[in-house]
Amino acid sequence: MAEPGQNLAVVVHRAGDLRLENRPIPEPGPNEVLLRMHSVGICGSDVHYWQHGRIGDFVVKDPMVLGHEASGTVAKVGSGVTHLKPGDRVAIEPGVPREIDEFCKTGRYNLSPTIFFCATPPDNGNLCRYYKHSASYCYKLPDNVTFEEGALIEPLSVGIHACKRAGVTLGSKVFVSGSGPIGLVNVLVAKMMGAAAVVITDLSASRLQKAKEVGADFTIQVKNETPQEVASKVEGLLGCMPEITVECTGVQACIQAGIYATRSGGTLVLVGLGPDMVTVPIVNAAVREVDIRGIFRYCNTWPVAIALLASKRINVKPLVTHRFPLEKALEAFETTKRGEGVKVMLKCDPSDHNP
Amino acid sequence: MAEPGQNLAVVVHRAGDLRLENRPIPEPGPNEVLLRMHSVGICGSDVHYWQHGRIGDFVVKDPMVLGHEASGTVAKVGSGVTHLKPGDRVAIEPGVPREIDEFCKTGRYNLSPTIFFCATPPDNGNLCRYYKHSASYCYKLPDNVTFEEGALIEPLSVGIHACKRAGVTLGSKVFVSGSGPIGLVNVLVAKMMGAAAVVITDLSASRLQKAKEVGADFTIQVKNETPQEVASKVEGLLGCMPEITVECTGVQACIQAGIYATRSGGTLVLVGLGPDMVTVPIVNAAVREVDIRGIFRYCNTWPVAIALLASKRINVKPLVTHRFPLEKALEAFETTKRGEGVKVMLKCDPSDHNP
Amino acid sequence: MAEPGQNLAVVVHRAGDLRLENRPIPEPGPNEVLLRMHSVGICGSDVHYWQHGRIGDFVVKDPMVLGHEASGTVAKVGSGVTHLKPGDRVAIEPGVPREIDEFCKTGRYNLSPTIFFCATPPDNGNLCRYYKHSASYCYKLPDNVTFEEGALIEPLSVGIHACKRAGVTLGSKVFVSGSGPIGLVNVLVAKMMGAAAVVITDLSASRLQKAKEVGADFTIQVKNETPQEVASKVEGLLGCMPEITVECTGVQACIQAGIYATRSGGTLVLVGLGPDMVTVPIVNAAVREVDIRGIFRYCNTWPVAIALLASKRINVKPLVTHRFPLEKALEAFETTKRGEGVKVMLKCDPSDHNP
Amino acid sequence: MAEPGQNLAVVVHRAGDLRLENRPIPEPGPNEVLLRMHSVGICGSDVHYWQHGRIGDFVVKDPMVLGHEASGTVAKVGSGVTHLKPGDRVAIEPGVPREIDEFCKTGRYNLSPTIFFCATPPDNGNLCRYYKHSASYCYKLPDNVTFEEGALIEPLSVGIHACKRAGVTLGSKVFVSGSGPIGLVNVLVAKMMGAAAVVITDLSASRLQKAKEVGADFTIQVKNETPQEVASKVEGLLGCMPEITVECTGVQACIQAGIYATRSGGTLVLVGLGPDMVTVPIVNAAVREVDIRGIFRYCNTWPVAIALLASKRINVKPLVTHRFPLEKALEAFETTKRGEGVKVMLKCDPSDHNP
Repeated sequence: MAEPGQNLAVVVHRAGDLRLENRPIPEPGPNEVLLRMHSVGICGSDVHYWQHGRIGDFVVKDPMVLGHEASGTVAKVGSGVTHLKPGDRVAIEPGVPREIDEFCKTGRYNLSPTIFFCATPPDNGNLCRYYKHSASYCYKLPDNVTFEEGALIEPLSVGIHACKRAGVTLGSKVFVSGSGPIGLVNVLVAKMMGAAAVVITDLSASRLQKAKEVGADFTIQVKNETPQEVASKVEGLLGCMPEITVECTGVQACIQAGIYATRSGGTLVLVGLGPDMVTVPIVNAAVREVDIRGIFRYCNTWPVAIALLASKRINVKPLVTHRFPLEKALEAFETTKRGEGVKVMLKCDPSDHNP
Repeated sequence: MAEPGQNLAVVVHRAGDLRLENRPIPEPGPNEVLLRMHSVGICGSDVHYWQHGRIGDFVVKDPMVLGHEASGTVAKVGSGVTHLKPGDRVAIEPGVPREIDEFCKTGRYNLSPTIFFCATPPDNGNLCRYYKHSASYCYKLPDNVTFEEGALIEPLSVGIHACKRAGVTLGSKVFVSGSGPIGLVNVLVAKMMGAAAVVITDLSASRLQKAKEVGADFTIQVKNETPQEVASKVEGLLGCMPEITVECTGVQACIQAGIYATRSGGTLVLVGLGPDMVTVPIVNAAVREVDIRGIFRYCNTWPVAIALLASKRINVKPLVTHRFPLEKALEAFETTKRGEGVKVMLKCDPSDHNP
Repeated sequence: MAEPGQNLAVVVHRAGDLRLENRPIPEPGPNEVLLRMHSVGICGSDVHYWQHGRIGDFVVKDPMVLGHEASGTVAKVGSGVTHLKPGDRVAIEPGVPREIDEFCKTGRYNLSPTIFFCATPPDNGNLCRYYKHSASYCYKLPDNVTFEEGALIEPLSVGIHACKRAGVTLGSKVFVSGSGPIGLVNVLVAKMMGAAAVVITDLSASRLQKAKEVGADFTIQVKNETPQEVASKVEGLLGCMPEITVECTGVQACIQAGIYATRSGGTLVLVGLGPDMVTVPIVNAAVREVDIRGIFRYCNTWPVAIALLASKRINVKPLVTHRFPLEKALEAFETTKRGEGVKVMLKCDPSDHNP
Repeated sequence: MAEPGQNLAVVVHRAGDLRLENRPIPEPGPNEVLLRMHSVGICGSDVHYWQHGRIGDFVVKDPMVLGHEASGTVAKVGSGVTHLKPGDRVAIEPGVPREIDEFCKTGRYNLSPTIFFCATPPDNGNLCRYYKHSASYCYKLPDNVTFEEGALIEPLSVGIHACKRAGVTLGSKVFVSGSGPIGLVNVLVAKMMGAAAVVITDLSASRLQKAKEVGADFTIQVKNETPQEVASKVEGLLGCMPEITVECTGVQACIQAGIYATRSGGTLVLVGLGPDMVTVPIVNAAVREVDIRGIFRYCNTWPVAIALLASKRINVKPLVTHRFPLEKALEAFETTKRGEGVKVMLKCDPSDHNP
């Protein structure tokens, strides 16, 4: 094992101040495991905390380790841990409830107001060499699933939770609004759940091209269309109105288009977040019984994702376009900030830089 | 039976032009029944068509018989009708799908775009002496259910559909926004479905008093509070945030209050309709997974309502505060317009003015 | 507080060997509370362990404290407990998951295979003076809810869970098979959830009389009827087949009657347990899409029950027909064994024998 | 168009008496279409009526045209038909409700007790040259979907309905019991709905081989195993107990294995039908909350299946192993009876024998 202090970590101190520094190696509690981190993806929120020092009400007041798309190897287990042992390769679910409240008891633990969440202030993330986590929220990876696939379960989970909340099912026609990383995972997941056709919109032709590659049936490059015009194009391409719209931009006009586009009795899921207040055609949604549902992170997605990865039903590997050793984290963050590629992966284990 | 032409009907010709006039007695088709109308309630929408000649996109272009809260007696049955016979007392569901489309096949026939609906232009209502209707949408009344109870199933259905869409269940805490007739039926229905506590808001103390009488546990007379302040009062009275909010006003500030008030993971149902576009705190709703669901009329509510009325589990009789014979319909409409009482009932059968 | 050793407890040592003995007062762990027990109901399973030393695969190998229908007062809180303080009156949910497995994470913690459960071997119950329990599974009682109401939440929970799994909703017609204590709580709960009519069967006229008192609309005293004949009588009294049957006897003929009686598309819930293997008309159930669902204890019912008790929507007080001080526990068990009354309550707090 | 009398049809007169005979060409009613039949698959039930003259309570009393897996071309439309026109290629849903009862209104029209169903006595099927059908239950085929794919929607629908009732979703582990045609379509559909792994059992190695080809992940050739042993093997191959079991044999031991095999909280769907009464481990199912649900045919599956076929998400073409012109129907039935191949298709249009 490593010496005390040899725990290199990527720490944001305040807006614009990102540092690589050494931290003590933590000691796992009775129901925790100490992990030797392997692969950690950089998320848009990591970059946002670095650039702005806050996201909404969450403000970086004290130095905080970044990172929450992660996998690693169990180095040590607490006294009460029975389902994991040193050497186990695991994916890490970053949200861990602190108390067993009614949200937890009813299976919606993501809504627990006191939940711990990696790299959401004031909770530290896992972009470091050694990290301890609740054993119950570490999931053993099968031999045929790589560490990077394990780390990608986090962004994949956003798609799984969104498509589940949307009620995507066999034969669904789905409109995904916005072709960034979250739009892409929603295309992937919707198709896996049996969607018959997916149409996706974006401003960028290259992002739409990526959507095609992961399975979108139709693409619309949006320019100056009104929300109603976008809705009309969606219907034209699908041959009918979609039962489900997954809105991934948070832009007011896109939310409006999502309402107009969705078939009566269908569901609009809001994944992208924009301004606090938006103006929407509420009567149009209400009298056509188009449900509007948001998502907050995810719950109960890791076992689903692992089962799918193990059975080779889904291929997320092409999402990783860049890799950097942990020592070059600042360079990796700059690359991510420039919007290059899809997913930048940091390799935290000096002895193993494999996927 | 009546002579031809003896079919007195309440007809709106255009905004402000309401007439009592004689119409031919219709002949039922193979799957229809001819009804001798008994009791028909006046709805706010009836008054609105009289006053404004339109509701949204629905415009009175040709003279239209009003009325859709109705019950009567079968006078004649079409050749294909097997479950009804002359003399049967029935409640009338005013919406009848014209085609068996996917909405019908999946049990959401209220969303069928080509549906017939009493007193929605251009479809005639049943505020008259004789009226024909699809036999499948006439429901036999048990002996212990009065005609007026039968007519009141229509407004009751709005509450049933709203509370079902809201997911009211045993132990629910419910916030009803607006204490008009629709707010009141939602209080009634929510309590019947097992709600543990209902809080209701309104500007009017007298309307809140009525809500107390039908079962509301707490009332809030709103004055100049912000939406957040209303939400805070709701939580204070209930001792917790409500899982469910039923918004019956359509007012922007009330919809906003509904979002702020609803517990994470809960549901806001939009029943009241106001301006087409409203500004809402969408991020607040989305990240707390508060679902926003509208309702359009109702479906599958008549059998439920009849079972409840037959078992004496619900008492809607106090809702009827005025009665007029059909001949005095214009006077009845004036009374309704002045906002007196709760429900004005027209008695269409000259030989029987009983409830 | 009490002296060490002053923890009188009702302990079963083996079949037929029930003792009152002193045990040490336990020390609560960080997330636990120590409770001064107030009211504990005797359940049929308590009597069964005393008489037979086992229920199915659960065998009394070591002396075990009985009791799991319980309420008390917080005497001491562990270091991590924030939502309770000494002096709080609480109802106790007897099942506490030992690990956060997938059943817990998805809101069905009652199915967790390693769950702790009061008075199921080898886990001790709470029929004693002092008892420690997970704070998360102790629910604060409002001032207007008595300790005995708090203790009765346990049997009430069986009805809540059964009726939820059954999908009882507004207007349901429900057939409850068996009019013992569990049948009665199902009648109570089904009516509270909006059931329009409930019919109940039993061999005993006096038990059916009790069912009438708690709200059953119709009763059938079963003698030598075939299952089909019972089903036919149920339909005759309700005027239609019930959508829902709640089977509380476990007897093969009653399960068969439950299948025949339930309307196509409806649900039969199995609450009573009888022989391991039963012969059922499976094709009849399958081709009419009558779902057969069992229940195992309950989950997420305490908050619901407390909300209902606090709002005075349900009256369970008449269920308590006998009271004994803890010192006379053996006499109380003899009374329960003789089948007298409905619920026998033990009063564990020498200074307060109030309900 | 054809001359009167030129409507060759495959008619069963009584057990063992199957004839090719000419029938009059029917005239469509106002809401019907006349179809020139193209491709009709032979189902096990067709063979059963021919061999035994009955299935359960359904007895061939009068000569009945067989066939219900069918597609054809619109030849003539009734006066009220708006969504179809002559020349349209359509797939035929064989069940058409005769009345709009509560089952229809709630979206479960397959349970309507008076439903018309092709080739279920006394209703004629569509294994003939010309056939009339309710226009609402004829679904237009896109150009890229063949007639045979259209005919195969019927068996596919059994899998869609079963997997929907089972709740198959993303990441499900599924156990399919029995590898006949219905087992195969359940494998196909389960995988399309996102199942992570499917294990299938059968007595026959060759049938299991076919299951592998359509996507089963694991196969078990059953010999003399007890139900518990089968369950254990299923768990061993999947690495966990399946949440869902789809039982397609109707054999008592297989139903028992299905209960033992299914994970707590999961669902066993009964598709195969065997003896009326079976003995099952009901306590095992009940206390683990394993739901037992049957299916009766299907509802709302044609639009789903057409969307999937149009998007090329599913390939059912390999299921057709034999083709015969309608004139050689008796030979085709003999082939089917011998159990050769998977699906035998009859070509009813003399001018077009293409798939």
